[in-house]
Amino acid sequence: MKLLQERILKDARIREGGIIKVDSFLNHQMDIPFINEIGREFYRLFKDDNVTKILTVEASGIGIACLTAQYFNVPVVFAKKTQTKNLDPEVYTSKVTSYTHGRDYIIRVFKRYLSDSDRILIIDDFLAKGMAIIGLADIINQAGATLVGAGVCIEKAFQSGGREIRDRGIRLESLAKVDIDENNKIIFR
Amino acid sequence: MKLLQERILKDARIREGGIIKVDSFLNHQMDIPFINEIGREFYRLFKDDNVTKILTVEASGIGIACLTAQYFNVPVVFAKKTQTKNLDPEVYTSKVTSYTHGRDYIIRVFKRYLSDSDRILIIDDFLAKGMAIIGLADIINQAGATLVGAGVCIEKAFQSGGREIRDRGIRLESLAKVDIDENNKIIFR
Repeated sequence: MKLLQERILKDARIREGGIIKVDSFLNHQMDIPFINEIGREFYRLFKDDNVTKILTVEASGIGIACLTAQYFNVPVVFAKKTQTKNLDPEVYTSKVTSYTHGRDYIIRVFKRYLSDSDRILIIDDFLAKGMAIIGLADIINQAGATLVGAGVCIEKAFQSGGREIRDRGIRLESLAKVDIDENNKIIFR
Repeated sequence: MKLLQERILKDARIREGGIIKVDSFLNHQMDIPFINEIGREFYRLFKDDNVTKILTVEASGIGIACLTAQYFNVPVVFAKKTQTKNLDPEVYTSKVTSYTHGRDYIIRVFKRYLSDSDRILIIDDFLAKGMAIIGLADIINQAGATLVGAGVCIEKAFQSGGREIRDRGIRLESLAKVDIDENNKIIFR
């Protein structure tokens, strides 16, 4: 998506360890008309897939998912993160390892908000190791729902998540596939 | 707001300790067209206040803030929650006590995303003890920005937050003021 690539070149900042900071427009401060265009693009990509629900994980996926959901006219469900895996029979859970924060956490979704007739699109801001999307896919699988695909704004092409997810047969659409060259500059694949 | 009151009567569930669960439409599963109407109502209430930015706190405020921001055509900034107060000179922080979760946490906003010329509207889903809004107001004050007011979807009128915030001279607009009667039924003030 050209608009996103241009914005990344203009506003992203590179930090040590391959950290790409886009918090001026995507995931701390949010440029709403811009993210609306991202939602429109996700709709263009998935509009023929009879999506009934958008699933994301707190926190930075929520706004993007909500603006995207307007085009599909479907509800958003966001998985909550907790540290503890309590045995609540009303919730689906999956364990996610965060490399950014260096720890495991549990994502939770109330069972009543996913059904086996749902056709679910996962939306998130970033894809690095892909653990959040794999956890969400696990929850969709537990619910017996259909995973239509996953849409992410920025895929870090130099990390393994994209391959992991595609190898599982999940349709993955990344609006920008980002690499960092030897001069610490962003290039697109 | 009549639409919200009707929805609360239809779908809210009451739990022990005055917990009002609205996670079927507001803060776990999100009914997007419905929340769009909430955004339109916040716009009606604050449209003459020259709002330049909407501030909320992760996670459940984010979607509501983003849908609301479309009417104002302004960016959203969401404060992040952490457990640790590190001394990063680039961020404003404020300590918030969560009674729901029984612990303190720190909210953080990058300084570069708030300026002294900003006129800020706070948006959140719930108001109970009001600690999140007071923390956000503290950060707005540190930035030298103007706090236009706070809009919350549901105010728990039987808790102290609404009075605390209004006593500080902050304009507070609650779309539904909820009380729970002796039969554990919801009534509106």
